[in-house]
Amino acid sequence: MDFLDEPFPDVGTYEDFHTIDWLREKSRDTDRHRKITSKSKESIWEFIKSLLDAWSGWVVMLLIGLLAGTLAGVIDLAVDWMTDLKEGVCLSAFWYSHEQCCWTSSETTFEDRDKCPLWQKWSELLVNQSEGASAYILNYLMYILWALLFAFLAVSLVRVFAPYACGSGIPEIKTILSGFIIRGYLGKWTLLIKTVTLVLVVSSGLSLGKEGPLVHVACCCGNFFSSLFSKYSKNEGKRREVLSAAAAAGVSVAFGAPIGGVLFSLEEVSYYFPLKTLWRSFFAALVAAFTLRSINPFGNSRLVLFYVEYHTPWRRKTTRLGKYPVLEVIVVTTITAIIAYPNPYTRQSTSELISELFNDCGALESSQLCDYINDPNMTRPVDDIPDRPAGVGVYTAMWQLALALIFKIVITIFTFGMKIPSGLFIPSMAVGAMAGRMVGIGVEQLAYHHHDWIIFRNWCRPGADCVTPGLYAMVGAAACLGGVTRMTVSLVVIMFELTGGLEYIVPLMAAAVTSKWVADAFGKEGIYEAHIHLNGYPFLDVKDEFTHRTLATDVMRPRRGEPPLSVLTQDSMTVEDVETLIKETDYNGFPVVVSRDSERLIGFAQRRELILAIKNARQRQEGIVSNSIMYFTEEPPELPANSPHPLKLRRILNLSPFTVTDLTPMETVVDIFRKLGLRQCLVTRSGRLLGIITKKDVLRHMAQMANQDPESIMFN
Amino acid sequence: MDFLDEPFPDVGTYEDFHTIDWLREKSRDTDRHRKITSKSKESIWEFIKSLLDAWSGWVVMLLIGLLAGTLAGVIDLAVDWMTDLKEGVCLSAFWYSHEQCCWTSSETTFEDRDKCPLWQKWSELLVNQSEGASAYILNYLMYILWALLFAFLAVSLVRVFAPYACGSGIPEIKTILSGFIIRGYLGKWTLLIKTVTLVLVVSSGLSLGKEGPLVHVACCCGNFFSSLFSKYSKNEGKRREVLSAAAAAGVSVAFGAPIGGVLFSLEEVSYYFPLKTLWRSFFAALVAAFTLRSINPFGNSRLVLFYVEYHTPWRRKTTRLGKYPVLEVIVVTTITAIIAYPNPYTRQSTSELISELFNDCGALESSQLCDYINDPNMTRPVDDIPDRPAGVGVYTAMWQLALALIFKIVITIFTFGMKIPSGLFIPSMAVGAMAGRMVGIGVEQLAYHHHDWIIFRNWCRPGADCVTPGLYAMVGAAACLGGVTRMTVSLVVIMFELTGGLEYIVPLMAAAVTSKWVADAFGKEGIYEAHIHLNGYPFLDVKDEFTHRTLATDVMRPRRGEPPLSVLTQDSMTVEDVETLIKETDYNGFPVVVSRDSERLIGFAQRRELILAIKNARQRQEGIVSNSIMYFTEEPPELPANSPHPLKLRRILNLSPFTVTDLTPMETVVDIFRKLGLRQCLVTRSGRLLGIITKKDVLRHMAQMANQDPESIMFN
Repeated sequence: MDFLDEPFPDVGTYEDFHTIDWLREKSRDTDRHRKITSKSKESIWEFIKSLLDAWSGWVVMLLIGLLAGTLAGVIDLAVDWMTDLKEGVCLSAFWYSHEQCCWTSSETTFEDRDKCPLWQKWSELLVNQSEGASAYILNYLMYILWALLFAFLAVSLVRVFAPYACGSGIPEIKTILSGFIIRGYLGKWTLLIKTVTLVLVVSSGLSLGKEGPLVHVACCCGNFFSSLFSKYSKNEGKRREVLSAAAAAGVSVAFGAPIGGVLFSLEEVSYYFPLKTLWRSFFAALVAAFTLRSINPFGNSRLVLFYVEYHTPWRRKTTRLGKYPVLEVIVVTTITAIIAYPNPYTRQSTSELISELFNDCGALESSQLCDYINDPNMTRPVDDIPDRPAGVGVYTAMWQLALALIFKIVITIFTFGMKIPSGLFIPSMAVGAMAGRMVGIGVEQLAYHHHDWIIFRNWCRPGADCVTPGLYAMVGAAACLGGVTRMTVSLVVIMFELTGGLEYIVPLMAAAVTSKWVADAFGKEGIYEAHIHLNGYPFLDVKDEFTHRTLATDVMRPRRGEPPLSVLTQDSMTVEDVETLIKETDYNGFPVVVSRDSERLIGFAQRRELILAIKNARQRQEGIVSNSIMYFTEEPPELPANSPHPLKLRRILNLSPFTVTDLTPMETVVDIFRKLGLRQCLVTRSGRLLGIITKKDVLRHMAQMANQDPESIMFN
Repeated sequence: MDFLDEPFPDVGTYEDFHTIDWLREKSRDTDRHRKITSKSKESIWEFIKSLLDAWSGWVVMLLIGLLAGTLAGVIDLAVDWMTDLKEGVCLSAFWYSHEQCCWTSSETTFEDRDKCPLWQKWSELLVNQSEGASAYILNYLMYILWALLFAFLAVSLVRVFAPYACGSGIPEIKTILSGFIIRGYLGKWTLLIKTVTLVLVVSSGLSLGKEGPLVHVACCCGNFFSSLFSKYSKNEGKRREVLSAAAAAGVSVAFGAPIGGVLFSLEEVSYYFPLKTLWRSFFAALVAAFTLRSINPFGNSRLVLFYVEYHTPWRRKTTRLGKYPVLEVIVVTTITAIIAYPNPYTRQSTSELISELFNDCGALESSQLCDYINDPNMTRPVDDIPDRPAGVGVYTAMWQLALALIFKIVITIFTFGMKIPSGLFIPSMAVGAMAGRMVGIGVEQLAYHHHDWIIFRNWCRPGADCVTPGLYAMVGAAACLGGVTRMTVSLVVIMFELTGGLEYIVPLMAAAVTSKWVADAFGKEGIYEAHIHLNGYPFLDVKDEFTHRTLATDVMRPRRGEPPLSVLTQDSMTVEDVETLIKETDYNGFPVVVSRDSERLIGFAQRRELILAIKNARQRQEGIVSNSIMYFTEEPPELPANSPHPLKLRRILNLSPFTVTDLTPMETVVDIFRKLGLRQCLVTRSGRLLGIITKKDVLRHMAQMANQDPESIMFN
């Protein structure tokens, strides 16, 4: 009687905040796949089922793409409406945004769109004044009030219903994809609350973006759909393949950049990214981008393209305000709203700001940034305008931009890490774009006024269009974003998918590489890795190189002087012995050896499965008592006649545990842990078990080594 | 006296046609790096040297980018000139191409460029006739003669100087990057001959392209520059990182697509592609593309963008003609030239053909393909032309295209695999583009004449521009190329970098995914994998999944009934014993055990290093004779008083050989071989050595399993 040959419930699942074993997940999937293949030859129905199973991956991708695209579209529409609500309301239908309101109105032309009668500012509606100091103050107050309302609602919803909905979620998703379990992080409540609060916080005008959170939302969609298919819901490894693709779909809709999304998932987020996942991600990103474009009611795909960001709360842990998240949000929102309203560059939404900064000054441009002095003698075509001296508007814009830049840098630091969904992309890009545009205008004016200087003489004739300030803004945005996140290839692809121009690929590539070099000189970690380390997640970064000369024997436990390793013997311990061992230790598993004397390793048993197996056996199997002998061999040991029925546990024994010798260099061990995704590895010498190394031991050792020799990282 | 603690020459190198051990290469690099880091603290000079070492990777990338870009530019110029040489010559300077010749001539306007007096067709030059049957025949003959001359020169050069220069080289580069050694494949002679013959064969008008060979040329550059830096020349693993980046630079210049190049290297070519290599590849691709653009003297970067292809000689092995490579080339060239000349679509270079097929018919287009019947009542702007009925020219073009399509498909099959540099990209794209354009014109005419049909009714009003045949051509080219190579993401990126239009991303993605699905239904292998298998290279494909239920014990040697494994003992064999063992076997290495009785494993010794160590010891170390005891332990064994001096070999012993248990599933073993790049793995049970599994054993087993159950691949 060997009931354990049948699987029992909960075998093969993991506990919360534990690491999965990639090799085991993979081999479980192969078993499942093999069963389906052999069954498929039995009947047509089984054959169809096997086909459905083979295609379920693509179906999940399709569903994720559709839902992520739809959610992104709905969020865009809602943000658009609620952002305008801070300034006024549409009389014909209160759910219209400013643009929609004036579109439906047939009385206005495009030019005086801003003055269409159906759209009323709050001062017009409440006190019937549209100009003057009192109207300004009333509008100012209404702006602050709405911002506070939105922010308060958001922080309360997050606090009460889904604490995991705060932040961008990218560091946690990175950790989850590397094989960590955080239950509920990608759950339905998180999905719902994050979507709603994302609309609220973006509308409130806080210095944050919605792109990072959109990646989290897309991963929640991925988790939801994978729970519908047993192929993915029952295998943590396969589930992570779906989540990698969902992250690509998230970036795809956040930036309108499907290829950039796939590369972002590959370069920044994913841990295990086989080529199959590349194709699937590509498909999901395509569907998502397509769905979003179908929804977008403005017919202006460019608008969608400028909503970008992520988040970084790593200075917050110590502040006193951090203990009162709601108060913190209220204070930061109030300050943001008060300072942002008077300056036109901070009052408008950040994506509009970036869009304005990227644009070049055509002849028809009405922006203050394009207030140049025109030469009346000039008769050029509209799209080829030479460099001109700056007018009053440009000088005003420079001052306002400088103030906006300082404000944006400071307030962004305080905004990140509040307990609301928040991203870093848009604020970083805005900071870079402002700085870039200012440099660009400076260079342009230098070139105009001093075209005899050596640096300008060879390439800038007077009257030519040599300097494009908009391009400086774009390069600045890419450089700033690259410095914060350390993206390279995906950054460039996203930037040119955003702007639609392949011709700027060289300056963008140069900016990406330079900003990475400069930022790396200050420290190797990007914002996500910094956050992961701050939160202490067990994340084994593929980018860190381990170059120390330690050996497995220096890292393994037990250390010298510690009590010997807790092991099980293959056929001499009783159920009670094992239960005591489990109670007294908290290891995740135990090596099984032939006997305590020989210490020759035969396998490894997981703690969780031992507990479940003993519990099951005690309940269901007759004759199992505390002093039953447990055996892991094929045949039961020879026992005295009156001894109780022994318990066979070979089924839960992993007969191919990973072993290294004690003299294996730690760099090889680190490599094995990374590439094979192990939880633990046993250390032997000439076949004798010496100790064990777990993923946590490896991480601890790497941190120790890095602290001992901080200089070494420079040379990687 | 332990002279072996000093390294001796040739240790750590590999023999030709052998596989490298990635883990060992990696740990050797870490050692080197550690030495430099610790030395760098001793003096400023050593510190500067360590900085130079750290930056040498970027320097190599810069050099590769510069050389690859320059070579590609020179090849473009030479091909341009020699292609035109088949039709005529420039009187002002014979080294001018047709376009350059008529550019310098100030007498002609752009419109009658084709009739500029300085450019003389052969008939004009030789018999002073430019029209008529005899002129046509003379030009025809000269065309064939030049083609034959170029092809003969090319095949002779390849045969005599560099046999490795034939083909595209991509399958071999894939194999080399996976860790195989093929000496000379990336050597200087190959570089030189491949560059020269590539110009010759492309100019000869054979149905092949230069893009695949350009990747090989770039890899030769990479190999050359890595031989200048000991960091790369002495480490086969590091060298392969450089080669991966060089492959990216090759694609970058072949297509003018730097990002596509990086993705191609990642998706198609590379085996081990850490993120560091991603950044370096990106940099090399950028430099190469930039260099090429700086060289390109036409000021027309679009022209560069349409020179694309690879090669596939896998049906050739059995043909009788294959034994006479020179004759084969002559025959195929003659047939190609004879059939190609009369048809305008095959006479022009394939890249011009593709360019013409991709282009949409503007109002100013003079191509036969754009000979539509214009409605005289129509007054539309030039760039918005509605669908029109086809004129005579379009019908003629359709017939010629259909004939060209058939010819191209047939001749391409025969051209691939001749002993000349040849690629597959351009011919595949041309076939797809021709088919696509024909379908596009068909749909356009259907939509024009039957706009009341249900399928057209909803989206195509009469008088609107609903169908763009050029887009059909582009999608067709992408689909055909995708089917042949099974590229997906890199294909789409290359296509839109080629055409410069992001708006076609959705049809291109759909084409890429569909063609992959359809092609996979016929067989999982792309053209490169098929070629690798045909040539029997030991390539462990990352894309193949292994899903069989076999165990390590089924694959390891010795099999049941075979003589026991050849092992060394740690301290009881004499030098002579070992020399006999080496002579009698051809294994790459031998496990070292405690004693034959216990069979407990202590390490692994490479055959090559054993031979070198014994040779060195016999020459240089006193007292080493045939019956000296060899020992691998720290301390010499206790020997009788009169025994000869023992030989210590601990230095060459790998103390951390990779082991698995005999019950490890083969899928795990395959995974370990792939991810860690092992050469061999030892099999143990409870610490006792049972056998060995080499990379070849794994490949053989995978091939066996695939043959047993060919259906299973469908479900992957």
